[in-house]
Amino acid sequence: MRKILVLGAGKSSFHLINYFLHNASTQNWQITVADASLELAKSKTNNHPAAKAVSFDINNEDERNSYVSSHDIIISLLPPSLHYLAALTCLHNNKNLVTASYVSPEMSALHNEAFNKGLIFLNECGLDPGIDHMSAMRIIHQLQTDGAEITSFKSYTGGLISPESNDNPWGYKFTWNPKNVILAGQGTATYRENHRDKFIPYHRLFSQIEKIEIIGTGEFEGYANRNSNSYIHTYNLHNIDTLLRGTLRYSGYCSAWNLFVHLGITDDTYKINNLSTLTYHDWITSYLPSLNKPLLPTLKELFHYLHLTPQDWDRIIWTGILDKTPIPLSSGTPAEILLNLLQSKWKMKQGDLDLVVMQHSFEYTLNGKSLKHTSSLSVKGENETATAMSKTVGLPMAIAAKHILNGNISTKGVIIPVSSEIYNPILDELELHGVTFQS
Amino acid sequence: MRKILVLGAGKSSFHLINYFLHNASTQNWQITVADASLELAKSKTNNHPAAKAVSFDINNEDERNSYVSSHDIIISLLPPSLHYLAALTCLHNNKNLVTASYVSPEMSALHNEAFNKGLIFLNECGLDPGIDHMSAMRIIHQLQTDGAEITSFKSYTGGLISPESNDNPWGYKFTWNPKNVILAGQGTATYRENHRDKFIPYHRLFSQIEKIEIIGTGEFEGYANRNSNSYIHTYNLHNIDTLLRGTLRYSGYCSAWNLFVHLGITDDTYKINNLSTLTYHDWITSYLPSLNKPLLPTLKELFHYLHLTPQDWDRIIWTGILDKTPIPLSSGTPAEILLNLLQSKWKMKQGDLDLVVMQHSFEYTLNGKSLKHTSSLSVKGENETATAMSKTVGLPMAIAAKHILNGNISTKGVIIPVSSEIYNPILDELELHGVTFQS
Repeated sequence: MRKILVLGAGKSSFHLINYFLHNASTQNWQITVADASLELAKSKTNNHPAAKAVSFDINNEDERNSYVSSHDIIISLLPPSLHYLAALTCLHNNKNLVTASYVSPEMSALHNEAFNKGLIFLNECGLDPGIDHMSAMRIIHQLQTDGAEITSFKSYTGGLISPESNDNPWGYKFTWNPKNVILAGQGTATYRENHRDKFIPYHRLFSQIEKIEIIGTGEFEGYANRNSNSYIHTYNLHNIDTLLRGTLRYSGYCSAWNLFVHLGITDDTYKINNLSTLTYHDWITSYLPSLNKPLLPTLKELFHYLHLTPQDWDRIIWTGILDKTPIPLSSGTPAEILLNLLQSKWKMKQGDLDLVVMQHSFEYTLNGKSLKHTSSLSVKGENETATAMSKTVGLPMAIAAKHILNGNISTKGVIIPVSSEIYNPILDELELHGVTFQS
Repeated sequence: MRKILVLGAGKSSFHLINYFLHNASTQNWQITVADASLELAKSKTNNHPAAKAVSFDINNEDERNSYVSSHDIIISLLPPSLHYLAALTCLHNNKNLVTASYVSPEMSALHNEAFNKGLIFLNECGLDPGIDHMSAMRIIHQLQTDGAEITSFKSYTGGLISPESNDNPWGYKFTWNPKNVILAGQGTATYRENHRDKFIPYHRLFSQIEKIEIIGTGEFEGYANRNSNSYIHTYNLHNIDTLLRGTLRYSGYCSAWNLFVHLGITDDTYKINNLSTLTYHDWITSYLPSLNKPLLPTLKELFHYLHLTPQDWDRIIWTGILDKTPIPLSSGTPAEILLNLLQSKWKMKQGDLDLVVMQHSFEYTLNGKSLKHTSSLSVKGENETATAMSKTVGLPMAIAAKHILNGNISTKGVIIPVSSEIYNPILDELELHGVTFQS
């Protein structure tokens, strides 16, 4: 009997928990799903005989130690900032840990201690980061084994809405952390092109996009992620000329979003008070040069300046951000006001299907020839609970947990899934679940 | 005998120390000038019989207490972040303090303690902040006494180069802290217009400028300072419709600087390594969309996009930032690279005269009439040491110190010069030194 503790029963836990329940008897597993909301935990365990739902307070040290010490592996679906607390508790109780989040500097600092104890703290084992690493590394290792020299690698991922559920002019609904969507790209994007570092400041990010076609799925546009250059090291591609990682949206999203960025209403650094006296129309007016001119002509000038299209204008109007209706908040940062508005507009409704897309494009030389290789993934959700996002984030963690429990992973310490002993079994099993790359 | 301790003997100390030396015998003063560099301190005391130059380490607690305890008033010209340390030492030794810097939250927190000890910690008593507060408050109090209702107040200040020393296409040389010039405006500018809060994000700050004419001095352009709205409280103008504080530059500066902002090269948040392998031309290329196109045509497209002029192009070329010469740094933030380049280009040369300009514009109603009042200041430096900046920053502090020593200031605690008992004697005496507002 091996005992699995799942911390967090939110949106992304559906497929992960289902995988554990489905394989519980053959694998001899017992699963505990722990969440601040007992009801939420219960909704995921669904009275399964091998599962137990419990109410859990991560900030209670006794509770944390008691649950962690009585299980064999811990899967943390907690907000990223809480993984460190989970990791410390795992270290204290000699337990393995799996997360789908980026390795934070604090997590990274636990490597030696975890390594010396023979523990595995596997991070970045969801979709992005996760499947992106694994699928890219499989191709990179194969090309390198073949003797190829990789000169360019571009990788884009998007969590989107499926075409049949795409019923708004943005082609977007929240299928993942909405706040992250509002704040996406803040700072400076860094990537490598033709062996030179390149930089894109935030206010130009959404106008400097690349068109991406995924055969059989559609046309997308990609904007650069914050830091692509750290992957030169992660992927061991030190001599590569071009490396860029980015995010996919349906065509048209970026130019309209660029208006919000240009206005300044995605800023999360200052609070505005007395919002209840303002309409959205008033609020947007406060970001334009002069109140003496009416909003619409001023905004149309800005549209012209930003080379925006009539379709972009439709997108902006559709959000309601120019409406003369009161803002339903008393105070908030610009980003919070925008989030509050879009959360109702970009909400998945019953029957909506989401879509996860990913594309890797490689350029390489082999035997004196310049060659290209493209590998694309397209996963559609089954319904608004069994989402493609939940599947692609949760299944890699679940499969990884199985292999850790079965002693198949020899790498120890704070790791990410870039070695073949980890990515091969996960990618192979993901294919059985319809998570299949097309070349 | 009253003893004055001046901490810091840098650029801005010239007129301050001269004022103390000049009045030493009539006022019965003894002056100690303390600086990390004894030589620099000596160059300012110039063997005056009433003055002593000493080498001083602000981080040495014994030294700090010994100097502070043996003087009657402390003038801190230290970097703003060190005023708090000076203030704590003054509190410990029951001494008064004068600075020309903004009241930091830490400084503000000392108010009650200083007040209860009957001490005066007078801050914001230089040029901007300083003369701007004093001259504005004198007009505001006068208008309010007359029964006027002030509806609009805009105030602009600039530290510039005098027209006869203006020999570069930017009309700018560093006469003050160069790093602050590079980072100017980062964040979001907030002001009030027509009784509404207004916001300008950094990437639009230098394109959203106001033309300002100072009769007899010239044409300028002003961009908004970071936070004007806090002055609604400071100046006790709670019902004002419009309040904006800004910074002046000669015409043309802002649109050219806007290119640097738009490129992203004023960013101080990330380091670039391996700079020694790059020319300026390479570096600027790294901020443009594609290396496959040459720099100049790409940059000209951006010029067109930003509606820049041929004169702006001349300004950019003049800096050398498109030159194929190596960057003389091994690593640095974008802002540091730009600063390093401009420090040689915008350096005051021998014989150069600087210029300080300020303009307040009021709109008010009085006896049912709508009226305007404009008050302008223009101060020219005498030479590259006796600068207008040193005079307008240093003399207000020196005169304030005299009145504190003479017991003429009844307000206690952490204060700024907005009450008439402080601003009247300072503004009156400044006129004798040629610091005179014209209406």
